[in-house]
Amino acid sequence: MAIDRYAPAALLNMCMVRNGTRVLVLDKVGSKWDGLTFPGGHAEPGESLVGSAIREVREETGLTVGKLKLCGIVHWFNREDGSHWLVFLYEAGEFSGELRYSREGKVFWMEMEDFLRSELAPGMRDYLKIFLGEQIEAYGEYDSSSTGVFRFY
Amino acid sequence: MAIDRYAPAALLNMCMVRNGTRVLVLDKVGSKWDGLTFPGGHAEPGESLVGSAIREVREETGLTVGKLKLCGIVHWFNREDGSHWLVFLYEAGEFSGELRYSREGKVFWMEMEDFLRSELAPGMRDYLKIFLGEQIEAYGEYDSSSTGVFRFY
Repeated sequence: MAIDRYAPAALLNMCMVRNGTRVLVLDKVGSKWDGLTFPGGHAEPGESLVGSAIREVREETGLTVGKLKLCGIVHWFNREDGSHWLVFLYEAGEFSGELRYSREGKVFWMEMEDFLRSELAPGMRDYLKIFLGEQIEAYGEYDSSSTGVFRFY
Repeated sequence: MAIDRYAPAALLNMCMVRNGTRVLVLDKVGSKWDGLTFPGGHAEPGESLVGSAIREVREETGLTVGKLKLCGIVHWFNREDGSHWLVFLYEAGEFSGELRYSREGKVFWMEMEDFLRSELAPGMRDYLKIFLGEQIEAYGEYDSSSTGVFRFY
């Protein structure tokens, strides 16, 4: 494989945990992504993508999730430096443990229909199309002068 | 987002196209990945992952696929340089067009049970665990002295 086939990429995860008609919500504070969202974060070097999602849910909510399903991918491409921003979206089929807060923000269960009517974090409404099985990829391009919009696949 | 969150990554795709009990097979020649496999290749800069899979199937087989489902991801991590090799595995829900060969190798329909008993390209048997829905990620680490094996998630 030629080295020019490699491009800089940030690998992230986000996980939807459902409990009947309710969904596990993080009210994120202290970042430019403030608003209601699902737990998630960066994959660390030497970590599987699934493992990184399980770790982030545990760190942010106290719960241990299992039986993850891969819903799809959010994919931003930077036209200027050729870098990628890839968010792997999972749904957890099971969970155990006790809810607790982290410094990332409060976590709580919320009716999905109330969540959909709330003030969501930037991009979250687009992410939900993937979490809810309508699409498998949201692809967008951006540069320093414009942010672009997603095309869905 | 801090720049140190970016790592070099190669983004690839592979697509399983089924027609009843048969599967679309590529007999790959002229590379170190020789053997029976499914069509696929690298995503180009400025291309969605789904779009790259559709293009590769068209280039290698003549068929146009649609209604792609994301089965899972093959994920190699290079412990020495921190780079990732990510293969996004899709199943096509529909196809149209006429089969034709490319320089990559012959393409043909084959009974899935015969395919499973054949001489497959390296790694293909592991990939099949994801294509067939048993797992959603194959994660492996390697360096210049050892190739490693997959852990499945």
